[in-house]
Amino acid sequence: MELELKTSNEIIETSKKYNLHSWSNQGAINPKVMAKADGIYFWDGDGKRYYDMSSQLVNLNIGYNNKKVIKAIQNQAEKLAFASPAYAIDVRSQLAKMVVELAPDNMGKVFFTLGGADANENAIKIAKMITGRHKIFSRYRSYHGATYGAANLTGEPRRYACEPGIPGFVKFFDPYTYRAPFEFHSEEEGTQYYLSQLREQIIYEGRDSVAAIFLETITGSNGIIIPPKGYLQGVRDICDEFGILMVCDEVMTGWGRTGEWFGVNNYNVKPDIITFAKGVTCGYAPIGGVLVSKEIGAFFDNNFLSCGLTYSAHPIGCAAGIATIEVYKEEGLLEKTKESGILLGQLLEDIKEKHPCVGDVRYIGLFGGIELVKDKATKEPIVEYGKDPEKVMKTILGMLIEKGFSTYTHENVIIVAPPLIITDEELKEAMTIMDEVLVEVDKMI
Amino acid sequence: MELELKTSNEIIETSKKYNLHSWSNQGAINPKVMAKADGIYFWDGDGKRYYDMSSQLVNLNIGYNNKKVIKAIQNQAEKLAFASPAYAIDVRSQLAKMVVELAPDNMGKVFFTLGGADANENAIKIAKMITGRHKIFSRYRSYHGATYGAANLTGEPRRYACEPGIPGFVKFFDPYTYRAPFEFHSEEEGTQYYLSQLREQIIYEGRDSVAAIFLETITGSNGIIIPPKGYLQGVRDICDEFGILMVCDEVMTGWGRTGEWFGVNNYNVKPDIITFAKGVTCGYAPIGGVLVSKEIGAFFDNNFLSCGLTYSAHPIGCAAGIATIEVYKEEGLLEKTKESGILLGQLLEDIKEKHPCVGDVRYIGLFGGIELVKDKATKEPIVEYGKDPEKVMKTILGMLIEKGFSTYTHENVIIVAPPLIITDEELKEAMTIMDEVLVEVDKMI
Repeated sequence: MELELKTSNEIIETSKKYNLHSWSNQGAINPKVMAKADGIYFWDGDGKRYYDMSSQLVNLNIGYNNKKVIKAIQNQAEKLAFASPAYAIDVRSQLAKMVVELAPDNMGKVFFTLGGADANENAIKIAKMITGRHKIFSRYRSYHGATYGAANLTGEPRRYACEPGIPGFVKFFDPYTYRAPFEFHSEEEGTQYYLSQLREQIIYEGRDSVAAIFLETITGSNGIIIPPKGYLQGVRDICDEFGILMVCDEVMTGWGRTGEWFGVNNYNVKPDIITFAKGVTCGYAPIGGVLVSKEIGAFFDNNFLSCGLTYSAHPIGCAAGIATIEVYKEEGLLEKTKESGILLGQLLEDIKEKHPCVGDVRYIGLFGGIELVKDKATKEPIVEYGKDPEKVMKTILGMLIEKGFSTYTHENVIIVAPPLIITDEELKEAMTIMDEVLVEVDKMI
Repeated sequence: MELELKTSNEIIETSKKYNLHSWSNQGAINPKVMAKADGIYFWDGDGKRYYDMSSQLVNLNIGYNNKKVIKAIQNQAEKLAFASPAYAIDVRSQLAKMVVELAPDNMGKVFFTLGGADANENAIKIAKMITGRHKIFSRYRSYHGATYGAANLTGEPRRYACEPGIPGFVKFFDPYTYRAPFEFHSEEEGTQYYLSQLREQIIYEGRDSVAAIFLETITGSNGIIIPPKGYLQGVRDICDEFGILMVCDEVMTGWGRTGEWFGVNNYNVKPDIITFAKGVTCGYAPIGGVLVSKEIGAFFDNNFLSCGLTYSAHPIGCAAGIATIEVYKEEGLLEKTKESGILLGQLLEDIKEKHPCVGDVRYIGLFGGIELVKDKATKEPIVEYGKDPEKVMKTILGMLIEKGFSTYTHENVIIVAPPLIITDEELKEAMTIMDEVLVEVDKMI
């Protein structure tokens, strides 16, 4: 196979001519070439190096160019690149077993998809099949994917393209204590407030009509919103009270990102369903999945599972998943992430302390966010929700990238979520760049 | 990486314990192991060989174990396994260019997804963004995928799990002339009937509120329903009359299946959007996409494309796609398919002639279906639509598989769609098995 595109310029121009690029006006983009990548770094077409401080889309947890995962993909391609989901194949069975065994102990089976969006799509369907109910709760500051079902779970503006919406999808407020309607005297008081609001809303919607509550265990792109103490257990209790399924979207928080296999492990909560993707293969090959409890698994022994896709449990994805899980274990990445997370927390707190433009920092493991404000006291965000006509955030992001700090932003939040293999030295170096840029942002507000 | 599952029995038992299997009661399945595969054949765990007469899920057009595609995957895994969709990379640019250049000449750009379902999901969104309208037409005997948007396009029972449905999704009848409400005197008369019904339905729904008409160019799993003469051009004309986008789902019919790059090439019709997946990589790595006209492409120069997914245009999928397209060209598979298609047509006509249980056969290229009936004259289907309590079709399928003819059935139709590399000799051998089984089916009716 001979590629005809040789220079960076040819690659970029061809991409602009023929590729439709996600989430953008095509006329306004100027994509970088990713020419090479290794560890936590990648290089553009001009040979410039970047710290990948978002692990691409919070998926490249083990970093680039991991030889073990590459080898697993190469071997599986040669052995058996494809078999329809109807067949039992070794890697398909083994990855399922590994995933279930690493999950909370109430989990029993897994339905493999290709990514997070279709994992959530299938979780919605499963929740409706199990309960016979049709309403689905999810939160405003959330992202669950961009296909119709997943987009209707999503609370933020990326859902608007999938409206008019699916009947019965209901939104509630995240426990976003930093921007709560009033000052709480304690974390527990905040938890109590958000839970009681949720419970009341369920009653108004019809307690017997709600199939599931979907939530990112820790809200990801929409602001790294960490659930306050007792919140997740409270949601679990509400679900139990009304016979509602608790579905945790762990597409970002799964697979070591928070220092645990799954985000819920930090809170000792056992959802009925967990959706995952990203970190399970770190993007080396696409795979996602729906983990269901033993009880749900048993239900489908005698009930039709009306789910399916051609590439469910793709053999190469399964092989990549097995190898990736082995990498997490062999390199001790969960432990390492807990330790690096302490450092990241310190660095973020220093930044918050120092910069007037930083209203809040939130973090767990190597999952962090910096929330920018015009004024620390009033908490007025640096850009209005859903609006940034002067492209303030794009400018700030451009400054970071220019200095070699690659990440992405969402609303007024900068994501900091490097590969879990990052060293303390590298983390400090990268955060020095962040510090320098925030000095400039301080001057802008 | 050391796999712990060694024997077929271990693989099967582990799969039954931990995998949720598509479209089934989990208690009723007994999955086969796919132990090895090459060309048009695969072998189960007992070493038994099968003709793959459905190309798995009508995706494995180039057959198993194609060294060129395997090599492309291996090389790309090593070179750059992942880059977020925001980056321009050589294989991403090149595959886009190749796909656009092979498509009808009004096509301009491509948005890459992972499979057919999410291609259709994004096509719905694009159609609504372009037109500002919200109604979507699609057909009853159709399958477009199982995520919410795609399932709401789908007309057959697999959509029920995604109800209550999305507002504005409207179904119309396929030009299923074999089961038309009356006997037409000519193909053109049938075309005229179905088109006038569609046009009237659009007017009743509100001609200015319809964004798009989605149709499989040739209905696939739901019966290989070949559009009668002039039908597709008629749909094109209706779309033009009302400013509606024509979206052809070419997930099965694209990439050589019908002897052309796309099914629409057989009819010289130019849709506004084409969705594709399957044959573009033949399942070696997941990829799908939405091809849009130059006009639609230009619209998004200055309008926000509200579409995206982490694994859009996955590098390994792109590399596999480039190699697969080269295989089609180098092995002359389109020409070959046209020729094999003539033989398949003869074999199917012979079968129809001979067997009382065969009501109709339909075929184009290597895309064929055998429709089973209780009575040739009354056309009463061998199983009622959406109902097969005695598992008649499962029994027939079991007989085929037992004799080494692997395929799948849907309602009362058996799919015949082997890899395009099948030789005349192999095709005749396999169809001899079909003939033998149909002798038994004749006795059952």
